[in-house]
Amino acid sequence: MAEDMTVGDYLLHRLAEAGVGTLFGVPGDYNLAFLDHVIADERISWTGSANELNAAYAADGYARVNGVAALVTTYGVGELSAINGIAGSYAEYLPVLHIVGAPSTTAQAAGALNHHTLGDGDYGHFARAQAEVTVAQAYLTRGNAAAEIDRVIATSLRERRPGYIAIPTDVAAAPIDPPAAPLAVPAADTSARVLRDFLADARRLLEGADSATVLADFLADRFDARGELRALCDAGNFPQATLSLGKGVLDESDPRFVGVYTGGVGDARVRSAVEQADVLIAAGVRFTDTITAGFSHDIDPARMIDLQPFSASIGERRYAPLPLGTALEGLADLVTSLGRDWSRMPASVPESVSDTAAPTAALDGELDGELGQAHLWRAVRGFLRPGDVVVAEQGTAFFGACTVPLPSGVTFIGQPLWGSIGYTLPAAFGAQHAAPDRRVVLLIGDGSALLTAQEIGSMVRDGQQPVIVVIDNDGYTVERAIHGPHEPYNDIPKWDWKLVPRAMGAGSDALTLRATTPGELAEALAAADSADRFTLVEAVLPKLGLPDLLNGVSAAIAEANADH
Amino acid sequence: MAEDMTVGDYLLHRLAEAGVGTLFGVPGDYNLAFLDHVIADERISWTGSANELNAAYAADGYARVNGVAALVTTYGVGELSAINGIAGSYAEYLPVLHIVGAPSTTAQAAGALNHHTLGDGDYGHFARAQAEVTVAQAYLTRGNAAAEIDRVIATSLRERRPGYIAIPTDVAAAPIDPPAAPLAVPAADTSARVLRDFLADARRLLEGADSATVLADFLADRFDARGELRALCDAGNFPQATLSLGKGVLDESDPRFVGVYTGGVGDARVRSAVEQADVLIAAGVRFTDTITAGFSHDIDPARMIDLQPFSASIGERRYAPLPLGTALEGLADLVTSLGRDWSRMPASVPESVSDTAAPTAALDGELDGELGQAHLWRAVRGFLRPGDVVVAEQGTAFFGACTVPLPSGVTFIGQPLWGSIGYTLPAAFGAQHAAPDRRVVLLIGDGSALLTAQEIGSMVRDGQQPVIVVIDNDGYTVERAIHGPHEPYNDIPKWDWKLVPRAMGAGSDALTLRATTPGELAEALAAADSADRFTLVEAVLPKLGLPDLLNGVSAAIAEANADH
Repeated sequence: MAEDMTVGDYLLHRLAEAGVGTLFGVPGDYNLAFLDHVIADERISWTGSANELNAAYAADGYARVNGVAALVTTYGVGELSAINGIAGSYAEYLPVLHIVGAPSTTAQAAGALNHHTLGDGDYGHFARAQAEVTVAQAYLTRGNAAAEIDRVIATSLRERRPGYIAIPTDVAAAPIDPPAAPLAVPAADTSARVLRDFLADARRLLEGADSATVLADFLADRFDARGELRALCDAGNFPQATLSLGKGVLDESDPRFVGVYTGGVGDARVRSAVEQADVLIAAGVRFTDTITAGFSHDIDPARMIDLQPFSASIGERRYAPLPLGTALEGLADLVTSLGRDWSRMPASVPESVSDTAAPTAALDGELDGELGQAHLWRAVRGFLRPGDVVVAEQGTAFFGACTVPLPSGVTFIGQPLWGSIGYTLPAAFGAQHAAPDRRVVLLIGDGSALLTAQEIGSMVRDGQQPVIVVIDNDGYTVERAIHGPHEPYNDIPKWDWKLVPRAMGAGSDALTLRATTPGELAEALAAADSADRFTLVEAVLPKLGLPDLLNGVSAAIAEANADH
Repeated sequence: MAEDMTVGDYLLHRLAEAGVGTLFGVPGDYNLAFLDHVIADERISWTGSANELNAAYAADGYARVNGVAALVTTYGVGELSAINGIAGSYAEYLPVLHIVGAPSTTAQAAGALNHHTLGDGDYGHFARAQAEVTVAQAYLTRGNAAAEIDRVIATSLRERRPGYIAIPTDVAAAPIDPPAAPLAVPAADTSARVLRDFLADARRLLEGADSATVLADFLADRFDARGELRALCDAGNFPQATLSLGKGVLDESDPRFVGVYTGGVGDARVRSAVEQADVLIAAGVRFTDTITAGFSHDIDPARMIDLQPFSASIGERRYAPLPLGTALEGLADLVTSLGRDWSRMPASVPESVSDTAAPTAALDGELDGELGQAHLWRAVRGFLRPGDVVVAEQGTAFFGACTVPLPSGVTFIGQPLWGSIGYTLPAAFGAQHAAPDRRVVLLIGDGSALLTAQEIGSMVRDGQQPVIVVIDNDGYTVERAIHGPHEPYNDIPKWDWKLVPRAMGAGSDALTLRATTPGELAEALAAADSADRFTLVEAVLPKLGLPDLLNGVSAAIAEANADH
């Protein structure tokens, strides 16, 4: 650390300690001097995005692979452009630090009519808006900078949610003492007594049960409890399922993995395994509308051991404080001590597996026919490799991809709770920065890709080589499924996707392919598999074609919205 | 009006009454049923944008030509994506009604874990954020819908600032009585006594003066006082100037028009006319940092008659309530009664006009040399026609364009107070919808265009034929001028602009041209002038080239940000 440390340097030091290796964002005159320190920093590199919303999405995608992320925007215009991305990180539990370069404290104290203000002299508008979507906020001064930077970063890491730090130009450049100690992130509260009570009740429930299933979701990933989750599954040899928001948190190539639970629609075997088990151990689960086909899950709370980030419940009794990882460890020890094998499925579970993504004879014969959803997802299944990062846009892409079994070591990224269309394209850009040596496969519809398409230019600039499958179905098909299948508001401008990478700077370096039949798609994916360069495959699908799962989900959403 | 009117129909009826002819936005499942009513409506047409921020910018651009605008987004993801555009409308006084389709009241009352929520059951987060950037807000219920719709629209029209209306799916579809009377927009408060006091003091000031200048700004446009402003100018034959935010509010082809006042930098004659006049009549003026080169204006408040939307000041005395139009009318009558001709400029004003945009012999000889800023703005000057809508992006484009004299009847759109980069491309799209028969000329840098480029696809889809000049100077030149001229954060991906319209759906219908010399630019603009189709001219300029005015402005901003 330099002797002449500034507040900006201090912030960068703490971000690097937290695990941030890349800073996303867009320059603006209130953050430019701070960016000089970013450029000079050896631990953190700068990655510009085409706009601030895309930068926030990229940071979110980076955090899903790397565990933490940060972005820099400028006051007012920049931070408000990013706020929707930050809200998504809040909803889906990603610690993204949002650093905002602000006007100098002198300008603020004077209530000056500066650019990027509302012109009313009130410099608090945007911080108040950001407080709605962040777990901790700080407005740095020379006096509070060290304590406030530490507090916001630590809270964000502990709660796995975004933090907001506004740094006026003069404060960024002000001198500060180097930190005296490493960044301290307080562990989640715990209590030996609470854990004992919890395990005693869990033991009673399990001792009276013939069958038990583990249902895991995204919070087990977010709160770093994947290892403890795996240990529990191994200790009891349990049948295992995830929700789609947590897809990938369990190894889907494991024979005990049953599938993705989607409430009252979808695979009957998964449904039975989850709903009919005498005990359901739910690890980091949230039942939201789109992932349960409109709350159509049918689970008796009295049979459920529900593990949340900082507490647990069995039936109506709640145990707190009790961190998720601690509860999982305790349960694993308990299950080991019980010495039983739980691999037998509930008696009511059907023997045969219904697998919508599996090849069928009918599909095999149709290489020259129209490309349909079933062909697409079968082809994607064959295309995925162990270790891929699969990013699936909320729309037909997500609902198709979430039933495709993943090879081992695949990271799956979707956003079904926040569900902001366009999210995945910049998220794939960010994820690729977090995992430069892994293959990123992005599955996105044409309607969604329009919202954030310019980030293709950033991918190309940075030499990224993802495989992007644009599902060209001529508009917002997921909206058509819910309402207005033929209404003009679900139409979109018709782009020439083959030209897009070149227009955005790829020259002749990109591979672009178009597939209108199953045979062409197979050829395109084979070419993509060996391309080792930026690849975009335009898969032309029917306007109204839906993956099976989405049929049930969209009907439920339409019904909820028609509620009178 | 139909007998079976719904709340959604009522809202559309009031929007149509307010003057909204086009509804911008992006569909989402919480607004789809409402959009059915939009499609069925004969007074209001639907115009989809590629994303919500672009829709908000488009609505703002539409409002600048049409006087009022509206956009529809969906709950959470959509409305937050648009919030930066709405904030810009707030800062720069545009009545844009933001209609947000929200989850049903049943879901909200239950605190359901719906998509597009933060997953915490609190449905108030986003309305609270939107309240920071809107002048009136309503959360519609079956009981309050009529009164709240009327209140928000009327307040927005009266204050010329955005309003926010959230409409749950079930409320949109609920029956409502048709309105019993037309929408009532209360006029601004006024007082005969206040007006009398004001005019008495104005008379004293004018009677003791040898010279007087009118300085007009954007609020004279926003508060519909252009006619009254013109009448005042004619009554006294005053020298006239505008600020750059209000450029176009006065006819620049009028011989009494002196130029655009930019504080302590720029044209010496304009500066003298404004700063040296014995009386300065300021109509709807706000002195913000970028338009005054960092508050470098030098105006004695004691000599200023300052007319604001709802009040006026002379020296330290304030007159309220006193609407801008009323004050201008009163002043025109007063000036007429005084019977003097004020056309003589203050004695200190230089005789010769310094005109940075005028042709010079040196420039004429350089047809094959490198294209520079001076060539560009001279060429733009020659290109503009009476009646054009000129849209200039905050950056080199705005600071270059704001010194180009406008032909009669030109509408000039810029955003120097809010200054959100990328704004003008969608704003041009919206402005063209408001003025389908006028030529829209968009001047934008390559760095800015990246942020919102997908709206080119919407322009093409709608058959628009703007002329877009992309100033390709290889990055964020306006930021380079302030800080970090060679830093990597001011670099951007290098697009192939000639291909962009085609990639975004124009096929072979668009005219795309590239100019690297003054001669090529002249040829390109000549071709654009007669093209009658979508035209994009890429003007390649030096990375560090600045229009003259920006040299002074950027130095002032750099100094303010370095303030310690």
